[in-house]
Amino acid sequence: MTNAQMTAGVPMKWVGPLRVSGNVTTVETDVPLATYESPLWPSVGRGAKVSMLAEDGIVATLVDERMTRSVLVEAVDAQTAHTAARTIEARIDELRDVVRACSRFAELIGVRHEIAANLLFVRFEFSTGDASGHNMATLASDALLQHLLRTVPGISYGSISGNYCTDKKATAINGILGRGKNVVTELLVPRDVVETVLRTTAAKIVELNLRKNLLGTLLAGGIRSANAHFANMLLGFYLATGQDAANIVEGSQGVTMAEDRDGDLYFSCTLPNLIVGTVGNGKGLDFVEANLTRLGCRAERVPGENARRLAVIAAATVLCGELSLLAAQTNPGELMRAHVQLERDKQTVKVGA
Amino acid sequence: MTNAQMTAGVPMKWVGPLRVSGNVTTVETDVPLATYESPLWPSVGRGAKVSMLAEDGIVATLVDERMTRSVLVEAVDAQTAHTAARTIEARIDELRDVVRACSRFAELIGVRHEIAANLLFVRFEFSTGDASGHNMATLASDALLQHLLRTVPGISYGSISGNYCTDKKATAINGILGRGKNVVTELLVPRDVVETVLRTTAAKIVELNLRKNLLGTLLAGGIRSANAHFANMLLGFYLATGQDAANIVEGSQGVTMAEDRDGDLYFSCTLPNLIVGTVGNGKGLDFVEANLTRLGCRAERVPGENARRLAVIAAATVLCGELSLLAAQTNPGELMRAHVQLERDKQTVKVGA
Amino acid sequence: MTNAQMTAGVPMKWVGPLRVSGNVTTVETDVPLATYESPLWPSVGRGAKVSMLAEDGIVATLVDERMTRSVLVEAVDAQTAHTAARTIEARIDELRDVVRACSRFAELIGVRHEIAANLLFVRFEFSTGDASGHNMATLASDALLQHLLRTVPGISYGSISGNYCTDKKATAINGILGRGKNVVTELLVPRDVVETVLRTTAAKIVELNLRKNLLGTLLAGGIRSANAHFANMLLGFYLATGQDAANIVEGSQGVTMAEDRDGDLYFSCTLPNLIVGTVGNGKGLDFVEANLTRLGCRAERVPGENARRLAVIAAATVLCGELSLLAAQTNPGELMRAHVQLERDKQTVKVGA
Amino acid sequence: MTNAQMTAGVPMKWVGPLRVSGNVTTVETDVPLATYESPLWPSVGRGAKVSMLAEDGIVATLVDERMTRSVLVEAVDAQTAHTAARTIEARIDELRDVVRACSRFAELIGVRHEIAANLLFVRFEFSTGDASGHNMATLASDALLQHLLRTVPGISYGSISGNYCTDKKATAINGILGRGKNVVTELLVPRDVVETVLRTTAAKIVELNLRKNLLGTLLAGGIRSANAHFANMLLGFYLATGQDAANIVEGSQGVTMAEDRDGDLYFSCTLPNLIVGTVGNGKGLDFVEANLTRLGCRAERVPGENARRLAVIAAATVLCGELSLLAAQTNPGELMRAHVQLERDKQTVKVGA
Repeated sequence: MTNAQMTAGVPMKWVGPLRVSGNVTTVETDVPLATYESPLWPSVGRGAKVSMLAEDGIVATLVDERMTRSVLVEAVDAQTAHTAARTIEARIDELRDVVRACSRFAELIGVRHEIAANLLFVRFEFSTGDASGHNMATLASDALLQHLLRTVPGISYGSISGNYCTDKKATAINGILGRGKNVVTELLVPRDVVETVLRTTAAKIVELNLRKNLLGTLLAGGIRSANAHFANMLLGFYLATGQDAANIVEGSQGVTMAEDRDGDLYFSCTLPNLIVGTVGNGKGLDFVEANLTRLGCRAERVPGENARRLAVIAAATVLCGELSLLAAQTNPGELMRAHVQLERDKQTVKVGA
Repeated sequence: MTNAQMTAGVPMKWVGPLRVSGNVTTVETDVPLATYESPLWPSVGRGAKVSMLAEDGIVATLVDERMTRSVLVEAVDAQTAHTAARTIEARIDELRDVVRACSRFAELIGVRHEIAANLLFVRFEFSTGDASGHNMATLASDALLQHLLRTVPGISYGSISGNYCTDKKATAINGILGRGKNVVTELLVPRDVVETVLRTTAAKIVELNLRKNLLGTLLAGGIRSANAHFANMLLGFYLATGQDAANIVEGSQGVTMAEDRDGDLYFSCTLPNLIVGTVGNGKGLDFVEANLTRLGCRAERVPGENARRLAVIAAATVLCGELSLLAAQTNPGELMRAHVQLERDKQTVKVGA
Repeated sequence: MTNAQMTAGVPMKWVGPLRVSGNVTTVETDVPLATYESPLWPSVGRGAKVSMLAEDGIVATLVDERMTRSVLVEAVDAQTAHTAARTIEARIDELRDVVRACSRFAELIGVRHEIAANLLFVRFEFSTGDASGHNMATLASDALLQHLLRTVPGISYGSISGNYCTDKKATAINGILGRGKNVVTELLVPRDVVETVLRTTAAKIVELNLRKNLLGTLLAGGIRSANAHFANMLLGFYLATGQDAANIVEGSQGVTMAEDRDGDLYFSCTLPNLIVGTVGNGKGLDFVEANLTRLGCRAERVPGENARRLAVIAAATVLCGELSLLAAQTNPGELMRAHVQLERDKQTVKVGA
Repeated sequence: MTNAQMTAGVPMKWVGPLRVSGNVTTVETDVPLATYESPLWPSVGRGAKVSMLAEDGIVATLVDERMTRSVLVEAVDAQTAHTAARTIEARIDELRDVVRACSRFAELIGVRHEIAANLLFVRFEFSTGDASGHNMATLASDALLQHLLRTVPGISYGSISGNYCTDKKATAINGILGRGKNVVTELLVPRDVVETVLRTTAAKIVELNLRKNLLGTLLAGGIRSANAHFANMLLGFYLATGQDAANIVEGSQGVTMAEDRDGDLYFSCTLPNLIVGTVGNGKGLDFVEANLTRLGCRAERVPGENARRLAVIAAATVLCGELSLLAAQTNPGELMRAHVQLERDKQTVKVGA
């Protein structure tokens, strides 16, 4: 019985539509969210509604993309590690060929390194087409590591992963050097929409964002993070689209900014570490295929285009939920009233059913 | 169609059994993991096997538990904020009564605060019985905040949540002040089991843990974290047991330690921020009820006991996967071989099916 | 020759006067700054001038004070560590007596702990009178540690300092749990002073503070810090008053906040980790004694009052320099023009001399 | 009187000699330390003695050097920021010329950027000859910024410094991208020297380093740091050699590693952020000139060579003090006994004098 495969049926709904534009795609689409926390649906739904009332909707700009894996080698001493690092930099073309020989889609686009004591951490950066690229990057790094161990003197195997990648851990390196898609979303909300749909003002949102997201997280000892709940939307979206949802750990590190532009609200979420793909593990499940297809992310396109489309839709979804929650928190008691009302509704539904 | 509720069927398996002892419970049990990453199952399974070969299995010690929510108030100035903070500390008994009046299960067990400029962040700490306690803590904090705004002079509403809680963000405060269950797991693996089951040595594990988990994460700019992949096991376990899986963000912050004790391996995972419950959102789903029941976490017990039992089983599961992956990474190429073999097996199965 | 003691003559000037009020003292005073970076003097001087033009000057509120040292003990296992921690908490009165027996001034005011694997970090918190208290805390902790090792079963010596204190390292714990004096300074600058003395506007300062101090530091991967250059003022003040200037490491972690209040500028610097004293190492040097005396910090007062006075003056000095630099950076080119002008002046002086 | 310049006479001693080798220089030299904390001298002295008993002494490998300044510009929107960033990357040669036109010594060697919302942080990296380069980098960045504002469409002035540099703040970026000299020091201490001079064992040092420096700092919420007291040695050395000692803030972020090699001790300190120079502010003072000369850092050499020599001597000095303190802390009570003895000696000296 232990070995039988079952499924954990996480409740899922489509909410929206939301409107996205920007340098990747222009689209109006519903979005699927799988979650045990049902208040997430109306919350994102309200943000989506706001996006439909803004002329360009959510403008999502993809500013970078790469998948990384860091290997760890031990050198005889620091000088040898230093020499090895310079050798690696000088042989980047050779390393590109090693990657091409072992993968159709992975392309080596950068190498960074750091030395501590006699240890050398080498961080390989790849483009990985439509895959999020965990396995592709690991496979390529394995080939690169074997190649280095054979050809660079004075070094020996440390680890195929040195935690300098960094996968599923909250660190500073991913934002600074890049890992996953880096998407900036922006939404200009007209004053009347702020008032009627969000029941608040631009000034209140700006103040709350400063005090809660920037200052509060800082005081809590946060690292490269200033947002209310990116993790919630990412989890729901990742589960619904077959992503490795453990990547919400670094995905949750991002920045919300808000400006009061004469009563209109400029609202922006920057997500530097969006790890998403449209092919690979989890993508073959029927409901995932259906969801990706409905999102328009299974079309015939240049490799990478489907994944980029998915990334900006994910980022726009995050903005919707972030905006809605912040708006609610500007008003004393609103959050609790919403929760209580929702629970009551569920009650009713259950009673009725 | 948008409003119809569907489910995202995340593949789930039970693996094990694993053996747990310690100050909460002694049990041998399989554990359920829901994930799109199928290599997780055999990986945790190997760790579970190791736990069965150690006399006491995984010794899990629960050292703390509390759920928190921080409210934010604006004071006229810093002096007023300071006076308010002292007033709050002096009125702790009164605040306890406020909480008791609004909740059957929540109990106020501590208050901390921090002042920046004229802003006062007040972090309430609660015990919440068998619930993870997000909503209970928010509800109680809402009542506390209203009470404070009515009775403490010179302060006004800032936010029901000031990000000083901290929920679903990677920060330092949760580990330092406590949030969720804090569980330390320890396993003493006999030398021959290290060699035959884990195909490595204690010395190799110790060295890898130092270089990868402690040093590598540090260089990556991590915060209060030194582990290989706590997030993976937590995600799988959280989804399978109806938890709010976005809490893997802080859950992933924890520490792996290893010692070479004359060839035997002392291996320990400390998880300071385990947010789990056996009642509340997500727990009413049929498969979740079934899973919690099979884990023995739906028995008639003193409130809190079921949740603590779930916490130590979750922590033990994390140790199993952590140990297995580290062991694999001590050997060049093993990780890739395992992945490739697994993919081939899936292929076979699919072909066969 | 190696053993001869010489002096490093760091250039020192008094700048000011600045005006301070608040819950510790009300005073107008010049402040001494020793530095190799001469632009610091006019920069702080400008801020001081602003403080004199505000009615209450800089309002400095001391909200906490304590000195800490963490010891590290190894326990047989986590359960033993947990039991030891609870024992320690239960015996707080006994531990207070241990401290009283070894020190006239140190008083144990709190104990916190954290467990990882089988290791127990115990963080002792002391009041230390007018001393910054490094040595007093270490001496008392040494006595406490010996006492614990004698009386608590199952633990053995790990280290007299476990880096969980934390001294001269940038961490989150000092701000969250408290170490040194925690001083909040506030200054309300009238609009015309903002314009004429600072040559900027409140709105510009607010915007720059948000983007540079809060967001920029966040993106850089800072930890509990949002300011432009607290470290500069602290270094100058610490050297001039005989402090252990290595404590600028944690002292530099603090938060600048700004608000545009109808054109007036509300400006605040929160310094949670000010480590200062008026007695102890370095305080016996002639120029230090003279400086402390001139600052009014060598008067006959209740123990602790002189040190608190010194702390709020230090914090006010930090605000002056912080405000001045931010104002300069709101204007393109102003910083460089000031530097170049200053260098030219020095040239002239040198030529003239 | 306010404007008169005096000096703060910080007590200074030369300790040593210590032995350094490696890729920059091979030398035996005393080192000057200015400090109010007199125990620092014998502590560093003991480490220096150990270095003389190791064949190659302290092997110091300089692995990187650069000085940085980040400017901040506001773009119309994120897309414009993104376009601007790509434009800047494409025009690197043009920017190099801009720098050459305004500085004889500064050379632009790299540019990195990050976008958040509509804000663009551009981090310029320079080589700066023998200067630490703060002012040179600021001057060059000012010219670069003006050039960009004139030639790149859609952007406007944000700040000459965006805290993404990062100067005198503890962040992750400096270690990851490089700032200052990055020096790795290594020392192999024979077993008998460990026992007789350091009165400990390699195993004890290894264990303490793991538990205190790596784990303890991690639990305290440290960022990219694992050492006992780098800040103390850096402060003393910086003051004695005319450096901007506020740079100990980032200088204190570094990593100590130790290995037990069959009883011999491999000990290493990695200092990624050493900001030092032999020309510039503070270097014209008589005692500084004398000290730099005695250290051999004022010789006729290729520009940059003197500063690199100073950097490796500084790093070696740090290792000496770090090793000595850790050794002391392996033994219960030794630290306090040393302090008490030292105080007693001072007493005697004073009585005698």
